[in-house]
Amino acid sequence: MTTDKKIMLSESDIPTHYYNIAPDLPTPMEPPLHPGTKKPIGPEDLAPIFPMELIKQEVSQEPMIEIPDEVRDIYRLYRPSPLYRARHFEEMLDTPAKIYYKSEHVSPVGSHKLNTALMQAWANKQEGVKRLATETGAGQWGSALACACQLMGLECMVYMVRISYDQKPYRRVMMKTYGADIVPSPSKLTKAGRAILEKDPDSPGSLGIAISEAIEDAVGRDDTKYSLGSVLNHVLLHQTVIGQEAKKQMEIAGDYPDILIGCHGGGSNFGGIALPFLRDKIKGKKDLRVIAAEPGACPTLTKGPREYDFGDTAGTTPLMMMHTLGHGFVPPPVHAGGLRYHGSAPLVSHLLNEGLIEAEAYFQGEVFESAVKFAQSEGTIPAPETAHAVHSVVRHAERAKEEGTSPVILFNFSGHGHFDLSAYDAYFSGTMDPNA
Amino acid sequence: MTTDKKIMLSESDIPTHYYNIAPDLPTPMEPPLHPGTKKPIGPEDLAPIFPMELIKQEVSQEPMIEIPDEVRDIYRLYRPSPLYRARHFEEMLDTPAKIYYKSEHVSPVGSHKLNTALMQAWANKQEGVKRLATETGAGQWGSALACACQLMGLECMVYMVRISYDQKPYRRVMMKTYGADIVPSPSKLTKAGRAILEKDPDSPGSLGIAISEAIEDAVGRDDTKYSLGSVLNHVLLHQTVIGQEAKKQMEIAGDYPDILIGCHGGGSNFGGIALPFLRDKIKGKKDLRVIAAEPGACPTLTKGPREYDFGDTAGTTPLMMMHTLGHGFVPPPVHAGGLRYHGSAPLVSHLLNEGLIEAEAYFQGEVFESAVKFAQSEGTIPAPETAHAVHSVVRHAERAKEEGTSPVILFNFSGHGHFDLSAYDAYFSGTMDPNA
Repeated sequence: MTTDKKIMLSESDIPTHYYNIAPDLPTPMEPPLHPGTKKPIGPEDLAPIFPMELIKQEVSQEPMIEIPDEVRDIYRLYRPSPLYRARHFEEMLDTPAKIYYKSEHVSPVGSHKLNTALMQAWANKQEGVKRLATETGAGQWGSALACACQLMGLECMVYMVRISYDQKPYRRVMMKTYGADIVPSPSKLTKAGRAILEKDPDSPGSLGIAISEAIEDAVGRDDTKYSLGSVLNHVLLHQTVIGQEAKKQMEIAGDYPDILIGCHGGGSNFGGIALPFLRDKIKGKKDLRVIAAEPGACPTLTKGPREYDFGDTAGTTPLMMMHTLGHGFVPPPVHAGGLRYHGSAPLVSHLLNEGLIEAEAYFQGEVFESAVKFAQSEGTIPAPETAHAVHSVVRHAERAKEEGTSPVILFNFSGHGHFDLSAYDAYFSGTMDPNA
Repeated sequence: MTTDKKIMLSESDIPTHYYNIAPDLPTPMEPPLHPGTKKPIGPEDLAPIFPMELIKQEVSQEPMIEIPDEVRDIYRLYRPSPLYRARHFEEMLDTPAKIYYKSEHVSPVGSHKLNTALMQAWANKQEGVKRLATETGAGQWGSALACACQLMGLECMVYMVRISYDQKPYRRVMMKTYGADIVPSPSKLTKAGRAILEKDPDSPGSLGIAISEAIEDAVGRDDTKYSLGSVLNHVLLHQTVIGQEAKKQMEIAGDYPDILIGCHGGGSNFGGIALPFLRDKIKGKKDLRVIAAEPGACPTLTKGPREYDFGDTAGTTPLMMMHTLGHGFVPPPVHAGGLRYHGSAPLVSHLLNEGLIEAEAYFQGEVFESAVKFAQSEGTIPAPETAHAVHSVVRHAERAKEEGTSPVILFNFSGHGHFDLSAYDAYFSGTMDPNA
C-alpha cells in the first residue's frame, strides 16, 4: 500500500521478456491467408518484408520471449513508465471509483509506439537490414520509428499521407529531427504512387496508398525492410511491457483492476496493457472486465463483422481474420487519426469473439469533453486517441456513483495531445462535429 | 553509485522547503528603487499587484521557506523529476566528460515554469485573490500559470503578445484547455492597450506592452493580482526545488558537478538549478564552475552593464540593479523566445558580480546543431531555450576531450521542444539566421 500519486518502478523492473498470450488462448487463432491462394501463409511469404525474428514472433507459441539487452537498455530512457492514481480526477468526477492510469506519454516521442519501434529496429539490424520503410498518417508512428532507427543506427524512410504532410508540419519536423527521410504520399518514388498521381496529381493520399508505397520500397531494395506500428501479433507482443509493469505497480498500490480500459484503433496500446491482465482472467485467477474504447465514427469492434479481410485498402496484404468495416471503408476525418483503421488486430478480434473482452464506441464531442476534464484535474492533456479511453473511464466512474459501487479502474494513457491541439481548438470553437 | 540512466527519487523526497540564498550571500543585494522617488521600495508599494506572502519572500532573510502542503501535493503530479546520466549523448560526442541532466520537461506543461506558478497561485488563493493576470510571449509561462490556476481553483487572464497569438495558436489552445481567458495584446481591455491600438491598430505587440496590460488589469480589480514568471527573487526561490532534488540525485549517482550549466533569459531555471549548489561553493565546501548560457542575440549578462533599470519597456516597474541591455532594447526575433529579455534576474546579476558564476553567449545556428545531436542520442527534443544549455555542454565536453580531463557536467533540461518544431523546421530548411 502507498499513498503516492505516482507508482514508480526501478530500471531493474523493466520486463526481461515480452508476454506472448498465444499459448494461453482457450482456442487458437485462425491463420492469415495468402491473398492469391487463400491458403495459410508461411514464413517465406513474409520474408521479403519482415526480418525472420519478427516473423517467428508473429506465430510463436513460446509463452515468454526475451527482450534483447540493447532494447532494454534504450527502454531505460523512459521505462518503467509511471502508474498514477488519479486522485484529482476522481475528486472532479465525485466518484467512489478508484482510478489509475499507466502513463505511456512519457516516451521521448510522446506515446507507447516507441516500445515496438525499438524492438523492430533492433531485429532488423541483427539481420543486416540498413533501412526501414513505413507509412504514417498523422505522424505518431512515423515519429516513433524515426526515433528508434536513429537510436539503433538505421536509416528510416517514411511515406506520410500528403494531407497530413501539408497540414501537420510539426510531426514531419520531428521525424526530420530524428534524421528520417519523409516524402508526401502518393510520391513519384514508387510505381504505386506514380499510378495514383497520373490519375490525380492533387491526390491527398491515404494510409492505404502509403502502405502500398512503403511495402513496394522495402520489396524493391535489398537493404530495406518494412515496419508496421500496430495490428500484427508481434506488435502487440512488444507492447506487453506496458501491462507487465502495470501489474507490478498495481500490486504496490495494493489494488487490482475490476475494469481495465484502453482505446482501440489497430489494437496495439489496448493489447499492450490488456494481455498480461487477461492471462489472469484466462487462468481463472482474477475476474475483471476488459474494455476496448473505439470511435463511433470507425466502430470496427462494435459494428464490424469478424471475417477474413485485407489489411490495406489495395488488397495486397495477407487476409486476416478480424473485425472489419471492409478494406474499402474510409473512416470520416475524426480527430483521433490513430484510431481511423478499417480493421483491427486479429488478436483483439479473437479475444472479443472468445468473450474475454468487451468493446464500446464513443463520439468525439463527448470524448473531448472528458479529455478537458482530465487535463483540468490531472494536468496532462490527452491525445485524441487516448481521450476515448478517458471517456470510457468517466462513464464507468459515473455508473459506479449511480450504483453505489467502488470499482478499481485502470486505463492506459497512451499518448499526450501536444501535437493535437488543433483538435482541441476545433472542439472549443465549435467547428468539430460532436457526433462524428 | 548506480548504473541507472535515470536517477529517481520518491515523492517523500520532494523538498519540504524552498532554499533562500539571500542570507548566504557574501554581500547583500542592492534594493529595488521606486520609479518615482528613486528610494528603496517597501512592501506597501508592491501590495496592489502581489500578495503579501510573496512580497515577504521577495525580501526574506530566512534560509529555508516552507512549501505549503497543498503545493507539495500537486508537485507530486510530476516531481521529483528524473535526473539522467546522458550516456548516449556522451558516446555521440566521444567525450571523457560525464554528463548529467535534470529533466524539468516532464511537468504537464513541458517546462519548469509550473514550479513557481503553483506556489504563486496558492499564495494568492490564501489571501482571497480569485483571479490572476499575466503576460506571455511564446506561451510557456502563460500555459504554466493557466494550469496552476486551474489546479488551484483560480481564474486566469493571459495577455498574449499578438504576433505569438496569431502565429503560435497551439500554446493559446493549451491555455484555453486549462480554462484560462486569453486576449491578444495590445487589447481594447486596458488603457495601455487602447493607447497603442489608437496609434497602430495593427500593432504586433510586445512583452513590454503585455506586462503593462496585465499590471493595469490587476491594479484595477479587487479580485485580481499580477503574476510574473521569472526575474524576481521569489520566482527563483520557488525554482530551487530543482537544484535541491538534483543534489540528492547526484549523491546517489556518486558524483558532484565540476561544471553546472543552465540557459539564461530572465534567470529562473538557471537560478533553480544553481542556487542550492552555489550554497556549497559559498560555504567553501565545494568548488565548481556555474555557467549561465544566453543567446548571442540578447547578451544581457555577457555584454550588458550592471545598473539600475526598469523591468518593463514602458518604465513603470521598480528599478532593479541588474545586467541589462536597456529597457528600450528590442532583441532580434530569435527562436528562443523565452530568452529574449532585455534584463536579467537581479540575483543572477549579483552572483555574476560576486564572481560566483560565469556567463557564455551562443548563436542559434550552433545552438540548434547541438540540440539535434542531443535529440538524436537521448531521444528528447530540447526547447530552443534549453538548447543553449545543451550547446554549452557540448563545448565543455569537447574541451575536456582536447585537454584530456573528465569533468562531471550537470545541466538543467528546462523544457521540451514539442511546441517549437517550427524553429527546428527553420534550422533544417536554412531559413534560420545561424548568426543571430
